[in-house]
Amino acid sequence: MTLSYIAEILKSDFKGVDIEITGINTLKDANSHEISFVSNSKYVKDIENSKAAAIILSESLVEHLPKACLPLVVDNSYLSMAILSKYFAPPIEDDSLPKALIGEGSKISPKAEIANGAKIGKNCTILSHVYIGANAIIGDNTIIYPSVTIYRDCKIGSDCIIHANTAIGSDGFGFATNSLGQHTKIYQNGNVVIEDDVEIGSNVSVDRAVFGTTLIKKGVRIDNLVQIGHNCEIGEYSVFVAQSGSAGSTKLGRNVVVGGQAAFAGHLEIAPFSTFAARSGVTHNIKESGKTFSGFPLMDHKQWLKLQVKIARLLK
Amino acid sequence: MTLSYIAEILKSDFKGVDIEITGINTLKDANSHEISFVSNSKYVKDIENSKAAAIILSESLVEHLPKACLPLVVDNSYLSMAILSKYFAPPIEDDSLPKALIGEGSKISPKAEIANGAKIGKNCTILSHVYIGANAIIGDNTIIYPSVTIYRDCKIGSDCIIHANTAIGSDGFGFATNSLGQHTKIYQNGNVVIEDDVEIGSNVSVDRAVFGTTLIKKGVRIDNLVQIGHNCEIGEYSVFVAQSGSAGSTKLGRNVVVGGQAAFAGHLEIAPFSTFAARSGVTHNIKESGKTFSGFPLMDHKQWLKLQVKIARLLK
Amino acid sequence: MTLSYIAEILKSDFKGVDIEITGINTLKDANSHEISFVSNSKYVKDIENSKAAAIILSESLVEHLPKACLPLVVDNSYLSMAILSKYFAPPIEDDSLPKALIGEGSKISPKAEIANGAKIGKNCTILSHVYIGANAIIGDNTIIYPSVTIYRDCKIGSDCIIHANTAIGSDGFGFATNSLGQHTKIYQNGNVVIEDDVEIGSNVSVDRAVFGTTLIKKGVRIDNLVQIGHNCEIGEYSVFVAQSGSAGSTKLGRNVVVGGQAAFAGHLEIAPFSTFAARSGVTHNIKESGKTFSGFPLMDHKQWLKLQVKIARLLK
Repeated sequence: MTLSYIAEILKSDFKGVDIEITGINTLKDANSHEISFVSNSKYVKDIENSKAAAIILSESLVEHLPKACLPLVVDNSYLSMAILSKYFAPPIEDDSLPKALIGEGSKISPKAEIANGAKIGKNCTILSHVYIGANAIIGDNTIIYPSVTIYRDCKIGSDCIIHANTAIGSDGFGFATNSLGQHTKIYQNGNVVIEDDVEIGSNVSVDRAVFGTTLIKKGVRIDNLVQIGHNCEIGEYSVFVAQSGSAGSTKLGRNVVVGGQAAFAGHLEIAPFSTFAARSGVTHNIKESGKTFSGFPLMDHKQWLKLQVKIARLLK
Repeated sequence: MTLSYIAEILKSDFKGVDIEITGINTLKDANSHEISFVSNSKYVKDIENSKAAAIILSESLVEHLPKACLPLVVDNSYLSMAILSKYFAPPIEDDSLPKALIGEGSKISPKAEIANGAKIGKNCTILSHVYIGANAIIGDNTIIYPSVTIYRDCKIGSDCIIHANTAIGSDGFGFATNSLGQHTKIYQNGNVVIEDDVEIGSNVSVDRAVFGTTLIKKGVRIDNLVQIGHNCEIGEYSVFVAQSGSAGSTKLGRNVVVGGQAAFAGHLEIAPFSTFAARSGVTHNIKESGKTFSGFPLMDHKQWLKLQVKIARLLK
Repeated sequence: MTLSYIAEILKSDFKGVDIEITGINTLKDANSHEISFVSNSKYVKDIENSKAAAIILSESLVEHLPKACLPLVVDNSYLSMAILSKYFAPPIEDDSLPKALIGEGSKISPKAEIANGAKIGKNCTILSHVYIGANAIIGDNTIIYPSVTIYRDCKIGSDCIIHANTAIGSDGFGFATNSLGQHTKIYQNGNVVIEDDVEIGSNVSVDRAVFGTTLIKKGVRIDNLVQIGHNCEIGEYSVFVAQSGSAGSTKLGRNVVVGGQAAFAGHLEIAPFSTFAARSGVTHNIKESGKTFSGFPLMDHKQWLKLQVKIARLLK
């Protein structure tokens, strides 16, 4: 899509060299064929360093643009980005893609659906009512139980097990809300990548990234009914117990243990080898590794135990 | 089913004009061809104003019946209603219904199942392993991802998106328990109506109403793994973040925001533009609109923040 | 599999009479054709009383073995058991099993998949996209809604209802972690047994036992999005409200009521007729029956109400 056409969609002025734009991305990650957006003046530094071809922004931020970057001036940059995201959404399925490739020794139920463009490795077991979307890639020896849905463009590693009725790559929860309280969907054009040796329970939701990738690293174990928000990054060998979850863009180090019904707010960074007791509510970064936490608000686990004793005393 | 036959089922005496009864409903909503029930003397006023053809009740409440309304006297009216509800349950599928109607431009996977009596609008995308039940109606341009189940009689609007493995119209959680602790199912003979421009995440459960309708209004956004109980009404543009839920019969105004893992007790009324922080537990009505709440027990969000500071001081 | 071959897998010495081993089991439940394991010296008594053919253990515990029981000495008995568990895992499907048996009057959707070895009783309704695994057994009059997955070897009673997208028999959450933080799967070679007259909501996960059975007794009612961990035992007529759950091996008596989002830690025993308010967090046994609890940490419900008043006073 050309930059001039994008300007037309956004009803923004356009001056400069017209080029082909391949997608939308963050200020930090956009390359010279992508556009970005900024809705908050606290990201001025990121504007100045951005390699994006153009940035959707308000008039007041134009002065911070690098030379090679064109402005797309709008009133509400977040809403404009949402409107534009739809134009970059690929079709859910695409008949023009080549027929799926199935590796040697893989057993695919005739009642599974493997969309065009998908690739399945060797010795996999794909059971009935599984859906593997367009361009999805599955490694070797992976077992996918019935009624699992793998959305398009997602990648599952080798030696993985995914239990029944789990959804990998459903849309992240993103929308822009206008002054009337109406929501415009932000199309989630990223994907999910699950590395090797990961096991995921039943009825789990792992959302695809808005841009880029939701990443589940090697050796992770996820129990049933867990929510992983868009753009999360789950470190190697981390463990999520049942009914726990993470909001979007949170990054866990390796071997983090998340107790049952515990949850993370979005955009956090969690040190490796952290342990969170059941029902912990994590709303700030954890910088020191190897510690154990409890409660909501979160505190050191031993402090939490002490606090419960103090609280019980209130009754006396 | 005739009133005299119903009396026979309930082993209740029957005197009066025998008429055909089309269903069971609440005291307030029952019309002159429906029967109702009452299990609590605090609803005397509703008995007096009811338009029901007959009411299942205990001997002691008969005096409050309006003239046009016949008594069906039983020992345990709630259990009697449960027993009767089964007789009004339609078949899950019905071969005698006409073949499903599919609107122009809609793309239905051959691995989806569209039951007889269903109607699908124009330009919809219905992916593999989707089930659309008897007499269900889907609007135009709606996308239904794999392994979604839409139960019979439910209606989905236009421009909706429903993500993988979500269940719309599963039975509400209702049963009558006898003195031995045994449960009798209350058949959930209502439906779910989802208005236009609603997006629902993956692994969500929206239960059908016991009578009437569970209603999700225009523009609502529901994240993954959310529970919506029977007979809820979710106001326009309201937002449920992942793993939140509502028990039955709760009514939310427009633009209510429900944080992750937050939950509502049943039978509440929540003012529009209310915001509930993650893990709020809401057990009373909210009358004033536009406020923000936290905690369980629920309190004003600022009070909750103050309280956490006070609680932390207990440790010193 | 012979004992000598098992010793070879575990790189353990083997002396004695070689016999055929049929499975792995707990110290208490293993019979004379099974092997067991022990990873903690507090189970010395169970070693002494075990009927297992052989026990995987560390050198230091060998002295406690009964005469008829052979030692399989290893460094890390829990990890060794995990490694061995894979060898006892049956195939997910087995073409050599006889074609499924379907009882008279049962209506099976052509879009359901009934694996070889399964048996379905009379007058059942099995809807589209249901999967019934190898050797699974379904009683009479049972209704299974779309996209339910029943894993192999599980048994569902008569007069049951299982709602859409529920998984019965997915693997329990079990693994052994080595000193590098890497996890080895413990294959869950047990099953799930659901007795008669049980109703289970949509998007529920009931995990299969690691050994033995996860048991849901007669008349139980489970709402949507509930987690039942491996080896749990849920007493007759117990009730789980939406989004509640139990970790593994917890045993509930009859008519226990579990409120919404409440949860149990693992390995607990809960007296019959106990009631847990919404969001209770249960981490210890309940010995006295008929009481009502709230909160996390859990307390008597009336105490919890008092405590909330005291806590509210902190704000003054």
